Amino acid sequence: MKKIKIGIIGAGRIGKLHAENIVNNFKNVEIKAIADVYADKIMDWARSIGIVNVYSDHRDIINDPEIDAVLICSSTNTHAQFTIEAAKAGKHIFCEKPIDFDVNRIKEALEAVEKAGVKFQVGFNRRFDHNFRKVYEMVRRGKIGLPHIIKVTSRDPQAPPIDYVKVSGGMFLDMTIHDFDMVRYLSGSEVEEVFVYAGVLVDPAIGEAGDVDTAVISLKLKNGAFAVIDNSRKAVYGYDQRVEVFGSKGSITVSNDTDSSAVLSCEEGVISEKPKYFFLERYKDSFVEELKDFFEAIEKDIEPPVTGIDGLKPVLIGLAAKKSLEEKRPVKISEIEA
Amino acid sequence: MKKIKIGIIGAGRIGKLHAENIVNNFKNVEIKAIADVYADKIMDWARSIGIVNVYSDHRDIINDPEIDAVLICSSTNTHAQFTIEAAKAGKHIFCEKPIDFDVNRIKEALEAVEKAGVKFQVGFNRRFDHNFRKVYEMVRRGKIGLPHIIKVTSRDPQAPPIDYVKVSGGMFLDMTIHDFDMVRYLSGSEVEEVFVYAGVLVDPAIGEAGDVDTAVISLKLKNGAFAVIDNSRKAVYGYDQRVEVFGSKGSITVSNDTDSSAVLSCEEGVISEKPKYFFLERYKDSFVEELKDFFEAIEKDIEPPVTGIDGLKPVLIGLAAKKSLEEKRPVKISEIEA
Amino acid sequence: MKKIKIGIIGAGRIGKLHAENIVNNFKNVEIKAIADVYADKIMDWARSIGIVNVYSDHRDIINDPEIDAVLICSSTNTHAQFTIEAAKAGKHIFCEKPIDFDVNRIKEALEAVEKAGVKFQVGFNRRFDHNFRKVYEMVRRGKIGLPHIIKVTSRDPQAPPIDYVKVSGGMFLDMTIHDFDMVRYLSGSEVEEVFVYAGVLVDPAIGEAGDVDTAVISLKLKNGAFAVIDNSRKAVYGYDQRVEVFGSKGSITVSNDTDSSAVLSCEEGVISEKPKYFFLERYKDSFVEELKDFFEAIEKDIEPPVTGIDGLKPVLIGLAAKKSLEEKRPVKISEIEA
Amino acid sequence: MKKIKIGIIGAGRIGKLHAENIVNNFKNVEIKAIADVYADKIMDWARSIGIVNVYSDHRDIINDPEIDAVLICSSTNTHAQFTIEAAKAGKHIFCEKPIDFDVNRIKEALEAVEKAGVKFQVGFNRRFDHNFRKVYEMVRRGKIGLPHIIKVTSRDPQAPPIDYVKVSGGMFLDMTIHDFDMVRYLSGSEVEEVFVYAGVLVDPAIGEAGDVDTAVISLKLKNGAFAVIDNSRKAVYGYDQRVEVFGSKGSITVSNDTDSSAVLSCEEGVISEKPKYFFLERYKDSFVEELKDFFEAIEKDIEPPVTGIDGLKPVLIGLAAKKSLEEKRPVKISEIEA
Repeated sequence: MKKIKIGIIGAGRIGKLHAENIVNNFKNVEIKAIADVYADKIMDWARSIGIVNVYSDHRDIINDPEIDAVLICSSTNTHAQFTIEAAKAGKHIFCEKPIDFDVNRIKEALEAVEKAGVKFQVGFNRRFDHNFRKVYEMVRRGKIGLPHIIKVTSRDPQAPPIDYVKVSGGMFLDMTIHDFDMVRYLSGSEVEEVFVYAGVLVDPAIGEAGDVDTAVISLKLKNGAFAVIDNSRKAVYGYDQRVEVFGSKGSITVSNDTDSSAVLSCEEGVISEKPKYFFLERYKDSFVEELKDFFEAIEKDIEPPVTGIDGLKPVLIGLAAKKSLEEKRPVKISEIEA
Repeated sequence: MKKIKIGIIGAGRIGKLHAENIVNNFKNVEIKAIADVYADKIMDWARSIGIVNVYSDHRDIINDPEIDAVLICSSTNTHAQFTIEAAKAGKHIFCEKPIDFDVNRIKEALEAVEKAGVKFQVGFNRRFDHNFRKVYEMVRRGKIGLPHIIKVTSRDPQAPPIDYVKVSGGMFLDMTIHDFDMVRYLSGSEVEEVFVYAGVLVDPAIGEAGDVDTAVISLKLKNGAFAVIDNSRKAVYGYDQRVEVFGSKGSITVSNDTDSSAVLSCEEGVISEKPKYFFLERYKDSFVEELKDFFEAIEKDIEPPVTGIDGLKPVLIGLAAKKSLEEKRPVKISEIEA
Repeated sequence: MKKIKIGIIGAGRIGKLHAENIVNNFKNVEIKAIADVYADKIMDWARSIGIVNVYSDHRDIINDPEIDAVLICSSTNTHAQFTIEAAKAGKHIFCEKPIDFDVNRIKEALEAVEKAGVKFQVGFNRRFDHNFRKVYEMVRRGKIGLPHIIKVTSRDPQAPPIDYVKVSGGMFLDMTIHDFDMVRYLSGSEVEEVFVYAGVLVDPAIGEAGDVDTAVISLKLKNGAFAVIDNSRKAVYGYDQRVEVFGSKGSITVSNDTDSSAVLSCEEGVISEKPKYFFLERYKDSFVEELKDFFEAIEKDIEPPVTGIDGLKPVLIGLAAKKSLEEKRPVKISEIEA
Repeated sequence: MKKIKIGIIGAGRIGKLHAENIVNNFKNVEIKAIADVYADKIMDWARSIGIVNVYSDHRDIINDPEIDAVLICSSTNTHAQFTIEAAKAGKHIFCEKPIDFDVNRIKEALEAVEKAGVKFQVGFNRRFDHNFRKVYEMVRRGKIGLPHIIKVTSRDPQAPPIDYVKVSGGMFLDMTIHDFDMVRYLSGSEVEEVFVYAGVLVDPAIGEAGDVDTAVISLKLKNGAFAVIDNSRKAVYGYDQRVEVFGSKGSITVSNDTDSSAVLSCEEGVISEKPKYFFLERYKDSFVEELKDFFEAIEKDIEPPVTGIDGLKPVLIGLAAKKSLEEKRPVKISEIEA
């Protein structure tokens, strides 16, 4: 079978992770080139995993006729632009989330994709997590009947640096966006309306930067079900990632992953392990799984499992959540789309 | 020590339960009389547990100078009236929840109590449950630091009869009222505002009766924290009663009680017991514990652990929740109090 | 229905517990009298729960023609003697375990019971525990197919006083006897042979008193299955009481009971409650349940659920275990019976 | 840093696994050659992961002066011979377990290793499992004080084919050998004596082949502690791999790994996932971890974590277990060594 030749644009933490995952897991995929504005800084790393071509200009990848697909792992503000360029060049595209913070830019990018007829997948990796995937499958197989209530607990182990907060697009677009995607994924329904209670309980500096760090977000879904997300930027016990889907025939929950199942019974109590702390560790396998499906979509010429619409919708919900917080009222997603 | 002499008004399910709990657990308390409009129907039962005086008119209890305290276990619409009468007669009062659905009636009753200077406790028994009490104590001892998010899952095993639904005051005042109390109890804070998403997903007949059966209720607390309650009238796997309090130093959760800890590993999976199904079974010990504190308050002349205010506030929140559902907006509790 | 009139012989901790359980739970049972060598010391307690007749001589109970049944709760060395006397007087008998440490004395007592045709139940209360009963029922209903391996973990929270150790009959007859009963109960099979590894790891004083405090005891059952019991006199985290029955179609386990289901996630870890510490607390309900069945056996004239043979067999196994430890070899139960 | 050049002898299931793990995980290790008696059958696979040299004669590896270390993954009866040959050629050796079933052959091999001064590690991969390693570390850090009782539950999901049973060396040397190693690993002590109860409860054909399929194995350790292993060749619910170490300051347990943490609450019960079914899946990461330590031992010139003695001792215990079963008595390990 002919190998898929890919180029990776952006070699930060996530770009490197994808590169290494590809080298270690996909024999039928070849990383022909990688581009990063700091090309010289990644040279050694790239060579060590067998990548020969290292560019500072992403266009060297986009213009390479041998390259079948690109992974866009650069900074968020470049995602839409690079998507458009890559689509025009006929490359299949795996784009890290979010596509953009601006709805029109996203739509522009998705139109370019559609016009070019290339595959396009957004990096909502959590859909490929063993726990959430299992919930998804059980819901689809009717194990809980019709979904009535979806609950997502999503708490970071520690707040990001304030410099990051300032450019993050705000908690709803930076962190909750994954949870909005999870609600859509697990419920199989679009979101109709959102209402937010949020505040600054973790760190006043986050508030000074114009953001919030704690939130309870209620959602009304088009299929009649309801959802609620609770977020915190700081759970001292680790990265807390749980969901529950409750329905007419039962309920499914998933709890946190831990490093081991060891339980110590001693005078102080019965003590088990804290949740895995770091998201790259917690969601390790999901990053491989999402690429597996992306490459399979290319090979079999089928629709990727996370589409452009899946990239757009959580941004719309995030923007509606922002508006809800500002205007202290429930906000319909259609208000944002308009 | 002198025995406390009590009278019980109302011998339905809960009145009988209290009577039997007293006989079996409180050597220093004597049930001098019980009153029920169907006095003849409870005669045999009353005798079997050693209660000699059975009246059809509650005033026979209220007018008995030997009786120190009354337990008001009659139908909700009589609670306020009987409270006023008992207070005027100088009896200490244990009143089942809710005091009334009407705020002014509640206030009237509480004024009578205050004027008389008698002890008054409301039957929010869940505060005395071993699980929730443990959470309460751990929060008070600072185990999770400052509370940021309180989550209450409260789902009935099956919907009540439609005839009951019609006179129940609506789900928020009938069922969620316990959860509103739980939020106040665990957070140590008053509620400032409430926002409701609710609908009819369990049984259309409930909708036809003007009520809802599924809800996600967000609350903003005066101490800056947030809370969320999710309710369903029908969890097919049993009575689902869980809480979580998340704060600056950690999180406490409690899960459901089961009949045993047996776990069967077999070809079908690893199967453990469903939650206890019936609320009287689930909260069995809490009904004894609440009376223990009530009698102790009388004996030691101290404030009972669930006060008149604790009886009033959840009704206010429930009414605000109703208004939020009707008006599709967040409603401040102060709007109801006014 | 005519009340069952009973007398209680011995008002130590367990005698008092039974008395109070009867007063609180069995309306159809009347404690007509209680006897204790220190009659004067229990007088106030007896009156407080409504027992009028308090004797220092147990024969005042045995000779009372109105008394239908006796509960023998006196010291172990009197069990067989009182059983014989009560049987001769035609009383039904509930006897605390063990009947005796001497096999011939036990047989003598059981012969007297048989001759008199009275009901006889031994106080192996753990059979009535909600967890172990559930395992028993699931095994009987074929949930795990044929039993292959039975595992019993039984560890005390702290070693008994050395004075008690000296007269206890040794750990196997004092503590493990319950576990031997549990193996018979759960497997539905007699024990054929036993092999013991045991030593003194908790407290040298126990060794000096001629006993052991830690043991791993293997058993070969007549139905072909195997069992293993592990004992310790000191589990610092509480009273550790677990079983597992593994068979051809699966496995059932039960874990420890705790005061609450509260789980604290904090920087130190994820901490849940320790097992209940005190056996009277842990097995609280089982003491009521065993009497319920005893009284039912009397009323319905059926066989009690724990028979004389059930009282004898664990003593035989215990003696075989002792012999195994002394002679460092597997010992057949038939060697003891002979 | 200079790459470690290795040769793999034997390309069955485990040889292939190691090869792929090395390619995917160890950049500093190069598989220079692989040898298998069916060289032609593995050619395509070898090429696909980049191994150029594929031999049918293992001596082509042993005689290659460029090769630093060999992985012996061939059939058990060749382990000792190949170890001797490799040692004489000055190669470091990673040898799959068991080294041999014959004690003298093992000793011969270990002498050759010692004489040559090469590194030698035995493939007891479970020591590198995340769960067992955590127990090991907690025990070493004194979390449970002095170990008193070690319990190992080890049950296969299904019995091996009868043809395999016949050449397996018997359950104790084929399956329990891992558990004997686990007891030594977790207790930090040698085993002094063993006593076995075992039988044929799973499949009569196993009995006809001269083996057993169910066992309870008690062990007396040199440090005064006791251990018990329970084995079954067939746990219908999956691969059951649990341990507990109980000591003077507490107890540590580990439970089974599952594919996800999903729990379904429905009318049938509260259902969670079965243990992972297949040992290669269950112990996946441990196979990488053991090689990591082996390569590190070579690079840093330190002792490997599982030594020749660690390879020898479990075989001795296994042979003592066999003898115990045959002679129906406890057998000292020293009886076998003599």
